[in-house]
Amino acid sequence: MTKGRLEAFSDGVIAIIITIMVLELAVPHEGDLRALIPLIPIFLSYVLSFVNIGIYWNNHHHMLNIVQRVDGRVLWANIHLLFWLSLVPFTTAWMGENNFSTWPVAIYGVVLAFAGVAYYILARSLIATNGRDSALAAAVGSDRKGLLSVVIYLVALPFAFVSAWIACALYVLVAAMWLVPDRRIEKTLRQ
Amino acid sequence: MTKGRLEAFSDGVIAIIITIMVLELAVPHEGDLRALIPLIPIFLSYVLSFVNIGIYWNNHHHMLNIVQRVDGRVLWANIHLLFWLSLVPFTTAWMGENNFSTWPVAIYGVVLAFAGVAYYILARSLIATNGRDSALAAAVGSDRKGLLSVVIYLVALPFAFVSAWIACALYVLVAAMWLVPDRRIEKTLRQ
Amino acid sequence: MTKGRLEAFSDGVIAIIITIMVLELAVPHEGDLRALIPLIPIFLSYVLSFVNIGIYWNNHHHMLNIVQRVDGRVLWANIHLLFWLSLVPFTTAWMGENNFSTWPVAIYGVVLAFAGVAYYILARSLIATNGRDSALAAAVGSDRKGLLSVVIYLVALPFAFVSAWIACALYVLVAAMWLVPDRRIEKTLRQ
Amino acid sequence: MTKGRLEAFSDGVIAIIITIMVLELAVPHEGDLRALIPLIPIFLSYVLSFVNIGIYWNNHHHMLNIVQRVDGRVLWANIHLLFWLSLVPFTTAWMGENNFSTWPVAIYGVVLAFAGVAYYILARSLIATNGRDSALAAAVGSDRKGLLSVVIYLVALPFAFVSAWIACALYVLVAAMWLVPDRRIEKTLRQ
Repeated sequence: MTKGRLEAFSDGVIAIIITIMVLELAVPHEGDLRALIPLIPIFLSYVLSFVNIGIYWNNHHHMLNIVQRVDGRVLWANIHLLFWLSLVPFTTAWMGENNFSTWPVAIYGVVLAFAGVAYYILARSLIATNGRDSALAAAVGSDRKGLLSVVIYLVALPFAFVSAWIACALYVLVAAMWLVPDRRIEKTLRQ
Repeated sequence: MTKGRLEAFSDGVIAIIITIMVLELAVPHEGDLRALIPLIPIFLSYVLSFVNIGIYWNNHHHMLNIVQRVDGRVLWANIHLLFWLSLVPFTTAWMGENNFSTWPVAIYGVVLAFAGVAYYILARSLIATNGRDSALAAAVGSDRKGLLSVVIYLVALPFAFVSAWIACALYVLVAAMWLVPDRRIEKTLRQ
Repeated sequence: MTKGRLEAFSDGVIAIIITIMVLELAVPHEGDLRALIPLIPIFLSYVLSFVNIGIYWNNHHHMLNIVQRVDGRVLWANIHLLFWLSLVPFTTAWMGENNFSTWPVAIYGVVLAFAGVAYYILARSLIATNGRDSALAAAVGSDRKGLLSVVIYLVALPFAFVSAWIACALYVLVAAMWLVPDRRIEKTLRQ
Repeated sequence: MTKGRLEAFSDGVIAIIITIMVLELAVPHEGDLRALIPLIPIFLSYVLSFVNIGIYWNNHHHMLNIVQRVDGRVLWANIHLLFWLSLVPFTTAWMGENNFSTWPVAIYGVVLAFAGVAYYILARSLIATNGRDSALAAAVGSDRKGLLSVVIYLVALPFAFVSAWIACALYVLVAAMWLVPDRRIEKTLRQ
């Protein structure tokens, strides 16, 4: 079974997710600059989620790039990942509209933690299908970075009740951690 | 005629259908957890439809994977399937917003029954184009599973007027039946 | 220059156009069947436009299928076609929301007439790029069917002011005329 | 690493951006022609942005067409470009809804200037990856046209406070400048 359509479908869903988030930026009826001020938190949450979805697309691209085979299990692991990502526009908008208050910030992290777990499951499914000695298995290894991300998201949960800004700082930390593309895979490819 | 664009167009339409449904989750203006409670039925109907659309994409992917040729008849059979799938966001939202009340639940099943019939027609068109002794004909056979799904949807219709939950349970049953990817096709491919 | 991305971009835009139209079917807050009655004209206009956009995709698929080359002129002729198609969700919704009243029905046809002209220009650009003795030139010929469609749309314009239903009947006639896929191209391909 | 998915993802995002802008054309509840009059500025801003996004897609298509390699840096430079383009539907709607008043017109240009800078960065990343003596480097050269566009957008900013129409005329000038597809690249390809 070829991976082409899995990539195309994922590209489509991720492209829509990353783009419809901008619809939350409600167009102000006034034409002065101050009309944009209430949109600042919504814009900031949009930027954070745009980067996060961009990271997922980037890593998905890298990961699928070095595997040869996909099967039914991989297709469902992929749809499972897309499900959690599809909730990001909702949590982003909820967080932005409520000015980064406690619960929306906490739930934002919970959905990203589930997406992280789903990504981990997808990586494991791909390794199971392509073999423990495949290029992907070598490149991903024990996937410490992915697991660490999920741990940070879970750590951010209680912190959101102390200060939503600490939780947000942790989300930015995870994003920064991933903004560097997955060198492990590029390195493996070069060898 | 190559099947590449039929796949790409279907991927695009299905990706949009599966993603725009999340727009029905209206973002609450309050930031506490209780603001999410009214969204629970909408979320549950979203999950059910996400899985159903995922199943259609998955089976569509498997089916197109083992055919060689498409023609004008197949293109229209495919657009006909996409039409019924395009109504799923509407029926999903209607069912969720009305807390799984009788008529929305019944109509939800009717649209899925039509989608099932459209999928059956698409399979027959593909077999007609690719030959009765093609790999697809062998893999799909008399398509008992597809026909059984349509029958269950039709059985669910009167039950929706007894209890909407029985009808929903039947919808979940059909989804569960299909969550296992179409092993017949994977088996045929392996041979 | 390869035609792959022109096809992919067109597939994306057409997939979105055909799918976002369903968002006009506003979800009723009541759960009884009568709540669907006000949606009937919107649904009918949706069906008509779904078929029309489906026809454009189908013909676009056929036409691009038999050409080899695209250049900058073709890219812009294609974007020009997509522009007019992108207005169809608006005219469809206007027509449906106003219960097929005169002006919306008239403007619906005007936009389709412009789309027809844009399709004609695209066909001419492709023939100019691929040569007067190319397979496309032979298949399309003088494109009587395309020109006839535009003429019928223009004839429908004054009729919309007599009776909107005559105009709509003419729109259905054009759609029926095209529902048969472009046999000329399939015939040429077979030779 | 292949460029196929970068093109597919960009096509998806750009297709959505160019299409969702039409959703800003709110469907009038009245069915007479005068109901369209308030939509005229929104329509004009839509046309301008449709052309601008079309130009970006066109140039993106040309540029990716002549490169061989992409890497992590290019992926992020591309996502950065898509981010600024994703803000265009918002600035377009703001400008249209406020009848081309000063601030919306100014901000519209600012976002396009950032998109221009992002495009420049993407071109530099592609040249860095593909080599200073690659076909792209020869075709793009010092990219005077791209830099000139950004300069004109910046010049338009103060002019928006004199007259929004001067600023708009400058935006139209930039679009006209680019409507001719990038002959440099087509020329390089032919050699």
